[in-house]
Amino acid sequence: MKLTTLKDGTATAIVDGQSISLNDLGFRGSLMDLIKSEPSNIEQVKKTLEEYTGEGRPVKKEDYDAPVSTPSKIVAIGLNYLDHASESQMDVPDTPLVFTKFSSSIISATDTIEIPVDLTREVDYEVELGIVIGKNAKNISPEEALSHVFGYTVINDISARDLQFSDEQWVRGKSLDTFCPLGPVIVTADEIDDPQNLDIGCSVNGQTLQEANTRDMIFGVAELVSSLSHSFTLEAGDIIASGTPQGVGFSRKPPIYLTAGDTVRTWVSGIGELNNPVKEI
Amino acid sequence: MKLTTLKDGTATAIVDGQSISLNDLGFRGSLMDLIKSEPSNIEQVKKTLEEYTGEGRPVKKEDYDAPVSTPSKIVAIGLNYLDHASESQMDVPDTPLVFTKFSSSIISATDTIEIPVDLTREVDYEVELGIVIGKNAKNISPEEALSHVFGYTVINDISARDLQFSDEQWVRGKSLDTFCPLGPVIVTADEIDDPQNLDIGCSVNGQTLQEANTRDMIFGVAELVSSLSHSFTLEAGDIIASGTPQGVGFSRKPPIYLTAGDTVRTWVSGIGELNNPVKEI
Repeated sequence: MKLTTLKDGTATAIVDGQSISLNDLGFRGSLMDLIKSEPSNIEQVKKTLEEYTGEGRPVKKEDYDAPVSTPSKIVAIGLNYLDHASESQMDVPDTPLVFTKFSSSIISATDTIEIPVDLTREVDYEVELGIVIGKNAKNISPEEALSHVFGYTVINDISARDLQFSDEQWVRGKSLDTFCPLGPVIVTADEIDDPQNLDIGCSVNGQTLQEANTRDMIFGVAELVSSLSHSFTLEAGDIIASGTPQGVGFSRKPPIYLTAGDTVRTWVSGIGELNNPVKEI
Repeated sequence: MKLTTLKDGTATAIVDGQSISLNDLGFRGSLMDLIKSEPSNIEQVKKTLEEYTGEGRPVKKEDYDAPVSTPSKIVAIGLNYLDHASESQMDVPDTPLVFTKFSSSIISATDTIEIPVDLTREVDYEVELGIVIGKNAKNISPEEALSHVFGYTVINDISARDLQFSDEQWVRGKSLDTFCPLGPVIVTADEIDDPQNLDIGCSVNGQTLQEANTRDMIFGVAELVSSLSHSFTLEAGDIIASGTPQGVGFSRKPPIYLTAGDTVRTWVSGIGELNNPVKEI
């Protein structure tokens, strides 16, 4: 299933670009409620959707909100593609390098990225595969890990490089309001044949700047979920931003930073794309 | 008011060591729901409590859960006491140094701190004044800031120093499960005459290792809330861990790290104390 939340608050499945609300599929609650609920509820929604004969409601891209906006944490992974570690002139870590973004930075697939110019002048893009946890995970093996994944989404890990590097702790530069475009949908795990074979990319104003495949991740989805679960409990609804490939702006010569009037497009095959305009405030 | 949540899930006021549930005071919902609700609801609960003539229920310290366990973020502040910055051999920052702990690390005032010895052997204590946000705050002035504070609590910012410093990003070493004792209550802001005049301390096995006063904070509560709100939206229920004073274990010669059998006591005057035993797992 492709699931999301609309700007009017409706939790919904998307079929052929049309909206069928979870309510019409027999589930009362938000998409986050569904993610946190029993697997049997999710199976029931899926079954009801397969048998659904009613009409869908047409929706425009601008109607989509972020599918979820209140994960209890966003676990972000640094340097998880070899070529990006290299361009960043950083060593490849032995274990996943964990940082985070505050959930207050989440916006939708079409919302505007706002650059507060009194805080930062070096705002960068980073396309990432987002992993949505469906079942609490603690000390689980890589073999068990994928059964704890609810689904996948697209994340743009917007980063104020000047703040990130002057603070040394990355969280503030990664968490300014609007710095986490997320969506447009969460695709349930059963519809992604192989999470390590997804094309992933980013363009700014039509110029492709990142283009890679998730097969190039250093720690794959199963390894990430397992490894992280040995440090802390991954809770249902938590999101893992699994790292970005080569091509980010700050490593380019000269660097490319986002400015007012830009449009950033980020995509993962099989999931969808984010199209976020940029303005300065 | 002194407010908390009991292990049985009851959201409650504490009066003379006895529990009077929020339900009995006319509020249906969790303590987090109350924090996020309209100021008029909170005033109404306070008024009902003042006029309450019923019996309280006796509660033991072990009955207390953490008052809240699902803040949308914990904003932790590094190096916010001059003598601690000095003992850490780090420069005093010009703006508050932001890091974070995942909310999955929160435990109660009497729960056990668990040290996973395959991950860390250098586990340290840090007593902190916790600030609980009551009303969303974005770009607010220091003069407005205190009106956005719901109340105050005690936090022990348990830290795996080996992970913290080898990862460089602090979040993992600060977020192992059980690494955020919090409570025993949230004292509403109206009962704290001056948040910059609270004694704060920590002892391990009866030996006092930190002893200070919040007047020695570099960025006080109003400055912190204002400053942070210029980087990101502080949401109702968010918690700010406002930094720790001098005396932490890793800066001592020889260092003092927590080990199995220890008991860590952390306190803030006017709020209460946490008493957490330590075990290795």
